[in-house]
Amino acid sequence: MRPNKVKALWRAGKPALVGWMSLADTFAAETMAHSGFDALVLDMQHGMGIGPDRAATWLQAVSATETVPIVRVPWNEPAYVQWVLDAGAYGVIIPLVGTREEAVKAAGACRYAPLGYRSVGPNRARYYAGADYLQHANEEIICLVMIEDIKAIDRLDQIASVPGVDGLYIGPWDLAMTMGIDPATYAKNAQHAAACNKVLEAAKRHKLVPGTHVNSPEEALQRFQQGFLFAPVTSDTRNLSTGSAAALNLVRAGLGK
Amino acid sequence: MRPNKVKALWRAGKPALVGWMSLADTFAAETMAHSGFDALVLDMQHGMGIGPDRAATWLQAVSATETVPIVRVPWNEPAYVQWVLDAGAYGVIIPLVGTREEAVKAAGACRYAPLGYRSVGPNRARYYAGADYLQHANEEIICLVMIEDIKAIDRLDQIASVPGVDGLYIGPWDLAMTMGIDPATYAKNAQHAAACNKVLEAAKRHKLVPGTHVNSPEEALQRFQQGFLFAPVTSDTRNLSTGSAAALNLVRAGLGK
Amino acid sequence: MRPNKVKALWRAGKPALVGWMSLADTFAAETMAHSGFDALVLDMQHGMGIGPDRAATWLQAVSATETVPIVRVPWNEPAYVQWVLDAGAYGVIIPLVGTREEAVKAAGACRYAPLGYRSVGPNRARYYAGADYLQHANEEIICLVMIEDIKAIDRLDQIASVPGVDGLYIGPWDLAMTMGIDPATYAKNAQHAAACNKVLEAAKRHKLVPGTHVNSPEEALQRFQQGFLFAPVTSDTRNLSTGSAAALNLVRAGLGK
Amino acid sequence: MRPNKVKALWRAGKPALVGWMSLADTFAAETMAHSGFDALVLDMQHGMGIGPDRAATWLQAVSATETVPIVRVPWNEPAYVQWVLDAGAYGVIIPLVGTREEAVKAAGACRYAPLGYRSVGPNRARYYAGADYLQHANEEIICLVMIEDIKAIDRLDQIASVPGVDGLYIGPWDLAMTMGIDPATYAKNAQHAAACNKVLEAAKRHKLVPGTHVNSPEEALQRFQQGFLFAPVTSDTRNLSTGSAAALNLVRAGLGK
Amino acid sequence: MRPNKVKALWRAGKPALVGWMSLADTFAAETMAHSGFDALVLDMQHGMGIGPDRAATWLQAVSATETVPIVRVPWNEPAYVQWVLDAGAYGVIIPLVGTREEAVKAAGACRYAPLGYRSVGPNRARYYAGADYLQHANEEIICLVMIEDIKAIDRLDQIASVPGVDGLYIGPWDLAMTMGIDPATYAKNAQHAAACNKVLEAAKRHKLVPGTHVNSPEEALQRFQQGFLFAPVTSDTRNLSTGSAAALNLVRAGLGK
Amino acid sequence: MRPNKVKALWRAGKPALVGWMSLADTFAAETMAHSGFDALVLDMQHGMGIGPDRAATWLQAVSATETVPIVRVPWNEPAYVQWVLDAGAYGVIIPLVGTREEAVKAAGACRYAPLGYRSVGPNRARYYAGADYLQHANEEIICLVMIEDIKAIDRLDQIASVPGVDGLYIGPWDLAMTMGIDPATYAKNAQHAAACNKVLEAAKRHKLVPGTHVNSPEEALQRFQQGFLFAPVTSDTRNLSTGSAAALNLVRAGLGK
Repeated sequence: MRPNKVKALWRAGKPALVGWMSLADTFAAETMAHSGFDALVLDMQHGMGIGPDRAATWLQAVSATETVPIVRVPWNEPAYVQWVLDAGAYGVIIPLVGTREEAVKAAGACRYAPLGYRSVGPNRARYYAGADYLQHANEEIICLVMIEDIKAIDRLDQIASVPGVDGLYIGPWDLAMTMGIDPATYAKNAQHAAACNKVLEAAKRHKLVPGTHVNSPEEALQRFQQGFLFAPVTSDTRNLSTGSAAALNLVRAGLGK
Repeated sequence: MRPNKVKALWRAGKPALVGWMSLADTFAAETMAHSGFDALVLDMQHGMGIGPDRAATWLQAVSATETVPIVRVPWNEPAYVQWVLDAGAYGVIIPLVGTREEAVKAAGACRYAPLGYRSVGPNRARYYAGADYLQHANEEIICLVMIEDIKAIDRLDQIASVPGVDGLYIGPWDLAMTMGIDPATYAKNAQHAAACNKVLEAAKRHKLVPGTHVNSPEEALQRFQQGFLFAPVTSDTRNLSTGSAAALNLVRAGLGK
Repeated sequence: MRPNKVKALWRAGKPALVGWMSLADTFAAETMAHSGFDALVLDMQHGMGIGPDRAATWLQAVSATETVPIVRVPWNEPAYVQWVLDAGAYGVIIPLVGTREEAVKAAGACRYAPLGYRSVGPNRARYYAGADYLQHANEEIICLVMIEDIKAIDRLDQIASVPGVDGLYIGPWDLAMTMGIDPATYAKNAQHAAACNKVLEAAKRHKLVPGTHVNSPEEALQRFQQGFLFAPVTSDTRNLSTGSAAALNLVRAGLGK
Repeated sequence: MRPNKVKALWRAGKPALVGWMSLADTFAAETMAHSGFDALVLDMQHGMGIGPDRAATWLQAVSATETVPIVRVPWNEPAYVQWVLDAGAYGVIIPLVGTREEAVKAAGACRYAPLGYRSVGPNRARYYAGADYLQHANEEIICLVMIEDIKAIDRLDQIASVPGVDGLYIGPWDLAMTMGIDPATYAKNAQHAAACNKVLEAAKRHKLVPGTHVNSPEEALQRFQQGFLFAPVTSDTRNLSTGSAAALNLVRAGLGK
Repeated sequence: MRPNKVKALWRAGKPALVGWMSLADTFAAETMAHSGFDALVLDMQHGMGIGPDRAATWLQAVSATETVPIVRVPWNEPAYVQWVLDAGAYGVIIPLVGTREEAVKAAGACRYAPLGYRSVGPNRARYYAGADYLQHANEEIICLVMIEDIKAIDRLDQIASVPGVDGLYIGPWDLAMTMGIDPATYAKNAQHAAACNKVLEAAKRHKLVPGTHVNSPEEALQRFQQGFLFAPVTSDTRNLSTGSAAALNLVRAGLGK
Repeated sequence: MRPNKVKALWRAGKPALVGWMSLADTFAAETMAHSGFDALVLDMQHGMGIGPDRAATWLQAVSATETVPIVRVPWNEPAYVQWVLDAGAYGVIIPLVGTREEAVKAAGACRYAPLGYRSVGPNRARYYAGADYLQHANEEIICLVMIEDIKAIDRLDQIASVPGVDGLYIGPWDLAMTMGIDPATYAKNAQHAAACNKVLEAAKRHKLVPGTHVNSPEEALQRFQQGFLFAPVTSDTRNLSTGSAAALNLVRAGLGK
């Protein structure tokens, strides 16, 4: 089976530098996949209604590169996990995991029996990964569960100890909302920082990967320096917006507008 | 945030005249959206297998007009609600809500914490609604739950009192089926009429919007006169069929066929 | 080969009552195809950018019915004709044929050697038509050329005498534009009527089918009564608009708005 | 209502010879549907991420033939069943049914009240089946539940006795996984064979149809001879791979490579 | 008719700051369209095989904003021009116009009779532009022809004097190729600069808009300062690549990699 | 630039064993691309209306393998050649080249100046081929022109001597039609064989690659033995049909049907 480069980085204690994608467009995928990220995450949860069909062609587009394809599924439901793993995703991020039961459901969807309840049929995955996929998938496929509710912070050990979970991924905006904090201000909020720190510590304690969503390359760097091992350094839509604004500003300034 | 014209109509005690769509086609969407409806509803539940990808492009097509885009999701599952709200729907109709628990699940999917459990990420919605979407969405987004089982009629107060529910929308065909009534005859059935009336009364009692599916403009008018505030006055496929039949009849009659 | 019902009607001297489609949506296609038209025309020329891929799925959708599928191609170029015929269209309408050379180009694209230069490969057409497609296609497939420039009116005999042309189809709007007439007023213009009459006469003279675009069922009826044998009695977008307007008017009037 | 040919075969005690499809491509669908199968199954569960939109166009493509269209849904969730039945599927295969509760959930999604909880709205199904669909659908639509966990083998009577279930369909690979057997070797495993035999017997006992997934035409034949009445004799991707390999081998051998 | 903001800028002697798009993705389109450009150009000529269907949905996505939608068609063929104009493009860029005949062909495809030979049918354009589209389109729609062959430089007056041409748009890479210059070095080549200057002068002489493709915001600014009035200040794929590289560099530098 | 394996085979005097595809489906593409062919040809000319959008995603799907992607374009028009080459095709087959002028048009569309008139913009091709694409494309990209009209047989030297043409590809069905031969019988026709032989000889004389379409692996082998260096050994739709028939026959025979 083609080794999962992100898992290899983590085994070496190194962070994975990730590109985040809200566009399912396959040419955008190739453009991002040729940009040097360790992995790309396609976000099926938020934005422009991405279903399994477009996720699958996105996975094909990324397949011709060395960038590891990961998908954030729309919900903690096994059908979504199954779709993207069978189509060749090398990892999933599963939102809204707040209890041990939800973690068991999430992890089980990623693992074949006897570890979990994933159904056998990696039809496209075998093209990407190799004919021995079935033998190694339980080991190589990444399962990150999202911690994004303040109530989950109290259950971190119950969640983190579920076999098959590879890491904890913070959703800082939702976490803020459940704490009554304006999400636009979370970065300056001590309580929020404390909650995130608990996730980082729990991950370390359980030998899991600590990851977190961020809003800028600067925040990603800071998180990596803090010990997080998985974070998006930028996203496709951020690149489109900031690149356009910078170009327009440069030209307008030059023209004296 | 762009105001929700349908909510404004309701606040003024006025009915919303709705166009129903079973076609996800974006040009059909624009044609309907330029026809003068207060709102359009895309029906993801029944018909031609409409997933989130086509729902999202439908929402884009409607966005250039003043017609309010609403989606009937395929099932009372939060992933579907999340997909269409993040893609810019200004309301959802959620089928098969028969208990208080189901109403809590439905309403919660539409509302951000602390009112509900909607996850933050209105990526496309912000383009449609404006940058302050997060501040006003809980107030402006419509959540209608469907009453379409005779067993639900006995639990109307439990359902209608759930915070975050904006209205009760009758599914008269399914309601008839659960009452053992041939749905083709519901309009003449007194028991069915009585059940519908209970929904209307419950909605008024709880200051919710009463709505109902209908089969013709005439029935819509009658329902509005009865006090309902939300009903489709026609649908795309109805227009296609009846318009074609009328044209063929006119020509065939003229030709003596 | 499945017989072409439209050609059979014409052989019997009867008009074909056609539905016009600007939507490539396959569910719209089925809805229209179940409405009783003799044929449907998909318009690839004007509107919502319909390429060969969507034309092909439209042809599949119509195939399960008895309605004859015809396509107006975007331009008098053989690639478009080839695409839709190989995908199972039973006829094409070819725009902007103004000279004998253009008619030879148009007709040749529809006919196999030695009559024309259509390349062999009716891969999907064979599923629709039957295994003996190649033996009968030159006879059964319809080729209508559009007369829509006042300059073409003087060359009607040169155009109509080209072997392989089955009929002349008037484009009244473009014809009006080339005559300096506001197209919105063509129906009341005597010069325009005279030009159309010349097309009708030329078609009869050459034993071809006279056809014309129209704007309403009433105009279609009038044209059939005048001797035309092919005209759209309504269209999908017309049905959507007029059906919506009628429903809204009925309800608004009833509500006293 | 158009009769369900597969059910007719079963009533006559005859097996249904099925083609399995992992491609949602509509031209592949037509090619397979013209190949002589009694039925085709589109597999939404495994492979290339097939959502409801592509399932619906696949159903349209098959509709022009006599081949019965069946869909394996991605999960035992009613939304998927509803989507494909409303779009015209004449049967569903529902994965991972291991308890009576799961069987009730599965069967109920396929049946209108009072037998089940399917919601009324067979918009496209009516085009395929006829206007009287609602009267006969509960009888004509096929519901197969998958037995693919060793724990389900002990509950066969509880599952098979659920009203509305038409047959038991074995998933031999997943079954092997849950038994700790390498799925590549199941065909030679006596315990696995015994478990499959229990399913066959339970089906007979409850007058249900026994079906099973297989890996080759030879295995299908053997299963039919054993008494199974539903099995895929080949699949689209198998045809592509083995046909390509055979052609390459023939040519390479001839060329002395 | 909705006024063409780009033409208004030009009438005021001001440059149009353009965003270039190689992605047909509709969410990318909205993201770019909300970034402040005066216009966006969708490039159907080079890259990821964009046909009329995706161009049309791209046009819908841009329609909800104030950004003017323009399309570079794949070739100087009227079918492409017709497709995108009827679908609502407010301008086209037509490649490879090297002779007066080619300019007449290009300009004629953009203009209704008697100015040109555009066929009437702005079905979607009317939704975007308004009901009076036909009265004003010849005036408001932009037609830019590309000068990208050294042989065209000698025929600038013949090309620029064709009625209906609004501007000359330089393709510097192709121009370099035809001059035997490595296109990567054109910016430093005096002969190339001289050729571009001739285009600028010819445009001024004929009161046309001078435009040019560029490779960076800096080059765009320089061109605007030189007198050009139309140039892309950045592109979607440039934004994706450079934004990703910048983010990765920032993080890697911070991590000491 | 990634070397073109097919050209390397030819330089070594070896035939290229090709898989032919009429399905644009990207999963079918991967399945075929993993089957061991030297190259795959996507046929845009005949069948299911494949436009540039689906050709581009097909090219992406094949890109993750070592199989060389080639496209038969729908017509001898440069726009089609440009679309597929810019999207990463490593060769094109151009239909209906019957004169020197047509060969010049075809070859020129494949070559950058000064050899031809291909416009610069290999946006996706660079991802597949490498950053130095522009330097080597004229050499590595394959241009095959189709000889499929008896009139072309007399002009073989004029066609074959056009710079930039890499090979002559016989269309035996169309060739038969133009000779008045039933195409189903061409394989037994001496005149047809003589014409094909002239193409083989002309190719050798001009140091071009002789290729031909065939109907079976056996015919491909025979052609390779005859000296042809490019032929499809099977196709996707052939595999689907013959594989299905063989499986059904095996099972039916076993069941005594």
